[in-house]
Amino acid sequence: MKNYSVGVDFGTLSARAVLADTETGEVIAESVFEYPHGVMDSALPSGKKVDKNSAYQHPQDYIDALSFTVKDIINKSSVDSSQICGIGIDFTSCTVLPLDENCMPMCFLKEFEDECHAYVKLWKHHSAQKEADEFTEKAIENGEKWLENYGGKVSSEWLFPKITETLRSSPELYKRTAYFAEAGDWLSGLLCGCEVRSSCMAGYKGMWSKKDGYPSKEFLGKIEPELSDIVGSKISENIKPTGTLAGRINSYGAALTGLKEGTAVSVPIIDAHAALISAGIVRGGELMIIIGTSSCHIILDKEEKSVKGICGVVRDGIIPSYAAYEGGQSCVGDTFDWFVNNCLPSSYIEEAKKEGKSKFEYIKEKAAKLSAGESHLLALDWWNGNRTPLADYDLTGAIFGFTLKTRPEEIYRALIEATAYGTKAITELYTESGVAVEKIYATGGISMKDELLMQIYADVLGKEICVPQSSQAGALGSAIYAACAGGAFDSFEDAAEKMAIKNVKRYTPIKENTAIYEKLYKSYKELTDYFGRGGNGILKSL
Amino acid sequence: MKNYSVGVDFGTLSARAVLADTETGEVIAESVFEYPHGVMDSALPSGKKVDKNSAYQHPQDYIDALSFTVKDIINKSSVDSSQICGIGIDFTSCTVLPLDENCMPMCFLKEFEDECHAYVKLWKHHSAQKEADEFTEKAIENGEKWLENYGGKVSSEWLFPKITETLRSSPELYKRTAYFAEAGDWLSGLLCGCEVRSSCMAGYKGMWSKKDGYPSKEFLGKIEPELSDIVGSKISENIKPTGTLAGRINSYGAALTGLKEGTAVSVPIIDAHAALISAGIVRGGELMIIIGTSSCHIILDKEEKSVKGICGVVRDGIIPSYAAYEGGQSCVGDTFDWFVNNCLPSSYIEEAKKEGKSKFEYIKEKAAKLSAGESHLLALDWWNGNRTPLADYDLTGAIFGFTLKTRPEEIYRALIEATAYGTKAITELYTESGVAVEKIYATGGISMKDELLMQIYADVLGKEICVPQSSQAGALGSAIYAACAGGAFDSFEDAAEKMAIKNVKRYTPIKENTAIYEKLYKSYKELTDYFGRGGNGILKSL
Repeated sequence: MKNYSVGVDFGTLSARAVLADTETGEVIAESVFEYPHGVMDSALPSGKKVDKNSAYQHPQDYIDALSFTVKDIINKSSVDSSQICGIGIDFTSCTVLPLDENCMPMCFLKEFEDECHAYVKLWKHHSAQKEADEFTEKAIENGEKWLENYGGKVSSEWLFPKITETLRSSPELYKRTAYFAEAGDWLSGLLCGCEVRSSCMAGYKGMWSKKDGYPSKEFLGKIEPELSDIVGSKISENIKPTGTLAGRINSYGAALTGLKEGTAVSVPIIDAHAALISAGIVRGGELMIIIGTSSCHIILDKEEKSVKGICGVVRDGIIPSYAAYEGGQSCVGDTFDWFVNNCLPSSYIEEAKKEGKSKFEYIKEKAAKLSAGESHLLALDWWNGNRTPLADYDLTGAIFGFTLKTRPEEIYRALIEATAYGTKAITELYTESGVAVEKIYATGGISMKDELLMQIYADVLGKEICVPQSSQAGALGSAIYAACAGGAFDSFEDAAEKMAIKNVKRYTPIKENTAIYEKLYKSYKELTDYFGRGGNGILKSL
Repeated sequence: MKNYSVGVDFGTLSARAVLADTETGEVIAESVFEYPHGVMDSALPSGKKVDKNSAYQHPQDYIDALSFTVKDIINKSSVDSSQICGIGIDFTSCTVLPLDENCMPMCFLKEFEDECHAYVKLWKHHSAQKEADEFTEKAIENGEKWLENYGGKVSSEWLFPKITETLRSSPELYKRTAYFAEAGDWLSGLLCGCEVRSSCMAGYKGMWSKKDGYPSKEFLGKIEPELSDIVGSKISENIKPTGTLAGRINSYGAALTGLKEGTAVSVPIIDAHAALISAGIVRGGELMIIIGTSSCHIILDKEEKSVKGICGVVRDGIIPSYAAYEGGQSCVGDTFDWFVNNCLPSSYIEEAKKEGKSKFEYIKEKAAKLSAGESHLLALDWWNGNRTPLADYDLTGAIFGFTLKTRPEEIYRALIEATAYGTKAITELYTESGVAVEKIYATGGISMKDELLMQIYADVLGKEICVPQSSQAGALGSAIYAACAGGAFDSFEDAAEKMAIKNVKRYTPIKENTAIYEKLYKSYKELTDYFGRGGNGILKSL
């Protein structure tokens, strides 16, 4: 009986593989591989310098990581590879990789090894900002409907700005490139020798939708004439639902990984998004908040509704046949970092040192001693603009209620509370738009390590929050998809029921706090309307 | 020819006397005397503990200071005391001193030497807060008209709350007390053997006005029945205009000071208010901003106009026959202290140490490198409420415009700018109420030592600001009053022309900055209206 599956999670600095038991979801073995080239943000392997806003990776690292980690878990577990029904991967996105007609990375060609654009452009490659702005402006000018799906703004992290940068900076490379692919798609395709294109990556990062496809020839031609025929030639339109069967391992894939030929390969998914299925979210009504430097708020629904101000909605993006809505807060952990680096007085830092605590631990402890509302402060959490629901990146943050008695821990707590109000505003937006929010989950680094924040979120939302306790949420999610693609289950529901993370920490709202926060949230909303919806433009004009 | 006069400035910890040339205002000699008992805020001379909110002084210290410093300056200068035409004093206020029927301080009586209320209650004696609140509440209940003149709130620092506290805490002392006097009035009276009551002190701190006198019997009786007949008995109604002739030195006064019998004694003034005449302000149109932990904004006008939200208007309070208006900001230097103590990151403190600078010097230097508007921040300067124009102590502060790039020096500069906007709002209030503001002066510790702040104020106000450069502004002011009382001049104008401080530092507005600040000030006013005048109550309810 084939009762194992493999998931490989490709992060920014390393990849992690797990071998999971399809009956229980138990992780039998795991393996990590750090990319030898890491993030190339100062020079290429040859030593050639690169622009300071750029961030490249070497595709050979991915191949090596895949090979090493999968062989390693098979080896460690002593499971016979014939017992493994499938492999799935999740990947950072958008990672753009130019390929030749044989799907070989262009940077592997001797003549392009000194050409930075021939390497993988990592998600945090930001040097295509000019191109991104141009896409936004021209899309507004042209009344492009898809722009609304992306919160009204094209990011420099996405597919088209990155490709346009390549076209302009290295026309010869552009000309010689046969395909531009997401690294995750390319790597999955390598295993089975066929073209793989994931709806999740195309939908969230490529301005693609199941209904309307990619932006039109006409529009793309307005950016650069050469772009007008890119769709269907250098960019494939053959998009497949995430988590479905992409193909089967061929001889090359088998040699690379130690898996058997014929083993199922699932269509890959963006790394953050893999956390939904590993938490057991495979149907509507269950919101996943991914809390990190920024946060996103993903929820499924059978129907595609108009939800104004979200970052994207992708049919088939996470679970086939479901529309996956994504809202976002552009600044969460980043705000706390800003505070701790810029506003923590020396007396606190000395005290923290004395007590052997990190700055964060120290200020968190102090903030945890305050009760709800005790800071007498309220903040608008717009340190990096507001993504959802206002989709306004020009907005800035504000803090209300200072007195001579205001202490740093009060400001810190008010900032946490503000991000909780921002999350509540997003859940309300979903509900008001007809997308039911019945249950709430959280994942991401902060959700695992910051109990104060999680309790404040539960109190502010007035709802229990479930935090699956696993450091392998991404890889396990991919293993679940792999099990589905490999035929171990009849449905994603069945797969999730068996394999999702069992160890869940629950944060239950404290009634009295919820009552206090409800009042404060009313003020937060009033201030959001006033400063964010035209009442007073000061937070945009400063 | 009698061409010298003496001014003595009684501060919180010491008194300073100057001997001034009435022809030039030149300070010929000066002398300082520190009060041996200082501020008694933990125990009386006997060792008896006192309440932690209280602050007493010993009246013997004032006598000793007066005697030592005046003799000292006569001695140092070798001026014959027959050449000295007058002496005047300025004093902290409100300082309440209970006296017996011979005008002897009650604390000099053996039986009361252990009774704290028998000593001088210094301006910063705050233990009568309950009484102050009671006065405010009952005055509102009763529709007392005088309350409006005081910004709608009675301070615990003032005459009546302090006396009421004495009545309730020590009824025997109250009963035996013949008079309650300001220490400055008492000391002036001691020199000439007659009762002296200054309009400046009675007007700003005693709820007295030239037109309506003190609060009514009926009202005072509602606080405590015993208070109903206090006015005219324990509190004198014989108020004289500040700076006029109070009396002449008698034999006791001559022996005490070394001055000749018959030397003129002028009616005393509050210490801060003496800075106006020493700056040459003796007519309408010239605003004096006294910038310290809090600020006040004093201006003269021939007519008494209704200026809503100011702290007080006192006819004869500073220059006889002029109405002296006083507006205030309840938190200026205090806000900067708050910031430096609570929000300065350790990296800055380390850097400051390395460069051998104080925290303030360091952050000031960094803030000075920013141009107007470069902080991209705007603040409402209400860390301790808003005195003028809103007269609302429940208001709290706010900062608008945070981004992840916001640096501490930007916040610091925004706080300075905010207090400048607050000052501009007060000058506009005067102008709009018909009290012309043609010229602007500044004095007080911050004005002398903070060039960045002064330049920002000039830029924000769009007007030149004159800062008289003298560490004896108070004592010299008193010497000018003394010269007037002593007959050296026909008018205060003549006296000021000759004797006012000649060394003046001028801050000229920089046009481009003024243009930028005008735009920001418009936003400040809009936010003031919204948060301070009922649009949104959040800054009061937090």
